[in-house]
Amino acid sequence: MSSLCVLLGIRHPIIQAPMVGVSTPQLAAAVSNAGGLGSLGVGASTPAQARELIEQTRALSDKPFNINLFCHRPAHADATRESAWLEHLRPLFAEFGAEPPQQLREIYLSFLADPAMLELLLEQRPAVVSFHFGLPPQDWVDALKAAGIRLLACVTSSAEARLAEAVGVDALVAQGIEAGGHRGVFEPERGDAAIGTLALVRVLVRQCRLPVIAAGGIMDGAGIKAALALGAAGVQLGTAFVLCPESAANAAYREALKSERAHATAITSNISGRPARGLSNRLYGDLGAALPDYPIAYDAAKALHAVASAQGCHDFAAQWAGQGAPLARELPAAELLAALVAELEQA
Amino acid sequence: MSSLCVLLGIRHPIIQAPMVGVSTPQLAAAVSNAGGLGSLGVGASTPAQARELIEQTRALSDKPFNINLFCHRPAHADATRESAWLEHLRPLFAEFGAEPPQQLREIYLSFLADPAMLELLLEQRPAVVSFHFGLPPQDWVDALKAAGIRLLACVTSSAEARLAEAVGVDALVAQGIEAGGHRGVFEPERGDAAIGTLALVRVLVRQCRLPVIAAGGIMDGAGIKAALALGAAGVQLGTAFVLCPESAANAAYREALKSERAHATAITSNISGRPARGLSNRLYGDLGAALPDYPIAYDAAKALHAVASAQGCHDFAAQWAGQGAPLARELPAAELLAALVAELEQA
Repeated sequence: MSSLCVLLGIRHPIIQAPMVGVSTPQLAAAVSNAGGLGSLGVGASTPAQARELIEQTRALSDKPFNINLFCHRPAHADATRESAWLEHLRPLFAEFGAEPPQQLREIYLSFLADPAMLELLLEQRPAVVSFHFGLPPQDWVDALKAAGIRLLACVTSSAEARLAEAVGVDALVAQGIEAGGHRGVFEPERGDAAIGTLALVRVLVRQCRLPVIAAGGIMDGAGIKAALALGAAGVQLGTAFVLCPESAANAAYREALKSERAHATAITSNISGRPARGLSNRLYGDLGAALPDYPIAYDAAKALHAVASAQGCHDFAAQWAGQGAPLARELPAAELLAALVAELEQA
Repeated sequence: MSSLCVLLGIRHPIIQAPMVGVSTPQLAAAVSNAGGLGSLGVGASTPAQARELIEQTRALSDKPFNINLFCHRPAHADATRESAWLEHLRPLFAEFGAEPPQQLREIYLSFLADPAMLELLLEQRPAVVSFHFGLPPQDWVDALKAAGIRLLACVTSSAEARLAEAVGVDALVAQGIEAGGHRGVFEPERGDAAIGTLALVRVLVRQCRLPVIAAGGIMDGAGIKAALALGAAGVQLGTAFVLCPESAANAAYREALKSERAHATAITSNISGRPARGLSNRLYGDLGAALPDYPIAYDAAKALHAVASAQGCHDFAAQWAGQGAPLARELPAAELLAALVAELEQA
């Protein structure tokens, strides 16, 4: 059993990525029950919603699972920029006979601005908590560790890895450019080194003391074996789990992921206000206007998607997917995990 | 011995990337003599220069080596665009008390426009010929194969892999986004899927019949083992060989590669007119003007670098490097190859 398995209390060093909007208690529990580490993304949840998700998961599994938090710099509202963005999107709303919303909201709080969420975690004590977009303050990290919770931090560069090591997390999730969903980059306004999984994992393994969990482009046992060959202690797979019946992905998303479109992922900030990789659609590319802060921009994209999808149009959906998308399989999570383990052992 | 080794007549499935400006007969011969496949980039050479490079290599090794050609769409000269670009660069030349050149030249021909180069290859019959930026016409491929030459094509996507398979090359070099130097993308004006090495190799292995050679971010035996775990038949390493004493890299380039700057590679088209990854400098980023065609733009960057470096300034150098750059080692090529093989066997 690997040291990461001991650290996290799991049988196989395979983590199901948190994926807000896709992860469910059913998915997380199925993965954890099969010996991996299931995850729930609660970055867009209130503490009350997070509590319910945790309790639902506990009702389905007595195994360790992971709760993921968004640690972005809290949004800065800017009515002028937000109005301009909505005006910019007006023609797209008009295609569906709709108007853009009057104004945009910060649809969820950063963990950094949500001490009630910290209280919930300290009360619920999930086995594992992971951070995306940055790190919480030192005293929060210390409190979570003192509560016996194992901490993971997503990093995309050596510099971010050093910050995560300094604050005292237990392991690093090395997110390569292949990964679907939001880039974990701490400060995207300062650029993105955009490092591929293979290079990032190997550099971090060579330069860091902490266990490195490889994420991005891993879809099968061969991918897992490659990550382990690089010195990774484990792997995190997201896109590989989207087609599981336990995921919350809707029919259009599943269909898109199974189509030729799976070859055409791209990164855009236009949907949420932060860079994220998904199946390219009409919201990708340079839309030529300044974006509201994350996640204020997301409110606009969600409104546009709502009016479009109500008329059967999915051209504005957030269908996150990584560059391994053409290899996604449609299997129940337990079967997928068993297949990954079998492939890894035979590879 | 792997099937790729049999195909190419080598002992270890490790290819030294061609790297115009870095590769030398000494480097290629040392790699080939050590059981890998040395490469010479002749994309910027005339047939007479290429002949000399081949003859020099043959004088140093009786082992197979690889000759790499640039198969880009021949440059389209555009005096207006070129003058505008030179005017745009004028303030940079002025920093060194210099004027930009009066006009720019197509400093080397595409292989596609150079039938004399085809004649040379058919006469010299190197063991292996590889293509970058695209593919030659079917009858050229057929002629090279009929001459007993093994053919490799660099591809960056499934679509390019299908084109290479259709024309009948013997193996694919899957160039992930980590790779240093010029992106092999056939038509960069139509976009770049920018796929990481891990995802690209695994997708191509699953979807193609040809052997896949992994390139991008591989720096040591662990990286090679990872590529083989993904199903690659072999690997191609470029940045790993830049610090070899046999390479043509100058002192400033070597120093930069050994510095913290190795963590900050980026892709720019500003230097040559086509996207290439290197150590970021003042020519990277959006310079805000339309570029001349490749390689006409390169003439401008080389002129600027010449006046700057003459005054000890290396802020405009083409110092190509991949995302594994922080792991580059300074070893003679034969020792590096032996180290790679030893690490692979023990990994």
